[in-house]
Amino acid sequence: VLPERLSRLVRWLTKLPGVGEKTAQRYALYIVADTTDYGRRLSEELAQVAAQLRPCERCGHVADLEDGKDPVLCSICRDNKRDSSTLCVVARIQDLIAIERSGAMRGRYFVLGKLLSPLEGIGPDDLPVATLSRRIAEEKVQEVVIATPPSVDGEATALYLARELAATGVRISRIASGVPHGGDLEFADEITLGRAIDGRKALSG
Amino acid sequence: VLPERLSRLVRWLTKLPGVGEKTAQRYALYIVADTTDYGRRLSEELAQVAAQLRPCERCGHVADLEDGKDPVLCSICRDNKRDSSTLCVVARIQDLIAIERSGAMRGRYFVLGKLLSPLEGIGPDDLPVATLSRRIAEEKVQEVVIATPPSVDGEATALYLARELAATGVRISRIASGVPHGGDLEFADEITLGRAIDGRKALSG
Repeated sequence: VLPERLSRLVRWLTKLPGVGEKTAQRYALYIVADTTDYGRRLSEELAQVAAQLRPCERCGHVADLEDGKDPVLCSICRDNKRDSSTLCVVARIQDLIAIERSGAMRGRYFVLGKLLSPLEGIGPDDLPVATLSRRIAEEKVQEVVIATPPSVDGEATALYLARELAATGVRISRIASGVPHGGDLEFADEITLGRAIDGRKALSG
Repeated sequence: VLPERLSRLVRWLTKLPGVGEKTAQRYALYIVADTTDYGRRLSEELAQVAAQLRPCERCGHVADLEDGKDPVLCSICRDNKRDSSTLCVVARIQDLIAIERSGAMRGRYFVLGKLLSPLEGIGPDDLPVATLSRRIAEEKVQEVVIATPPSVDGEATALYLARELAATGVRISRIASGVPHGGDLEFADEITLGRAIDGRKALSG
């Protein structure tokens, strides 16, 4: 009942993360119903991104080929004003973006791209530890800030990395976990509250 | 922190229904990380859909320009084996697709594109009643099956259409509402159960 062209677009859209058949159909039908040239323009933006953007060869963030190839580097890795002695390890590019927005990290990044996850079959050998170690040595990193999320997989990955990197002699730290800013203690779960208490800091004395 | 090209794609993606900033970013980053030419191919499918598909000028379903223009008609409106005496009125193309999948409708369709909704500011004047009446007259329709959803807006629209179309003398029916196939009475809400009882059918006698 749908034109083959539309069914094909729906099938391609379902490859996007978290997009099922119904959502893909909704997107496709929205594009057909639109009268403002939306579909053509979205297609052009997509083509540009596909042609011009690549993962940064150093950190895994997004890099633009227009800024130079060989090696392909992102704007953060190109920025000489960044503190190269601090390396922040994150699970995903989204986490890197969130940390950048906070303005609290002046060093560079390393995107793991995955976390240890027995359920998804991701084991220690799947983590890019060798690449990370090489960067620590080459760039004379003095502190590695492990900013994986405070979830089961994120904590397991942090502990594993800390153990594996111990031999490099670099200082290793972990981002703090506790009650979030503006958060209500009444509604915080027990693990979060436990971490808030365990990680308490002296205010005086 | 993101290349301008990527931010632009994210902005375009947020125009899709139900897609916010974070979801759009997730889609965009997935496309950049992909190594199977996904972005380029999705872009091409999109361009084709944008160039070749249009709403059917008769019923509002999706039509392919390749099947002929002037008028632009969908495969259902082109199909001479369809029973043109029955016209099924639906709110959205998705509903038409669902009914087609059931195989229970042999007539043609009319897509309203909207429902009466005081909350969204959609009033009687926004419904294409004149176009619908014209089709009933021109195609000698004998029965209009109103298949708007059994929600508050859907029911209001069904009642409004029934009243407006009364003058045409056409038979007007409404799809049945009740406990769905495989559904559990214990978990059905009161309105559904009430409708199931009110709409009961004689099995014998």
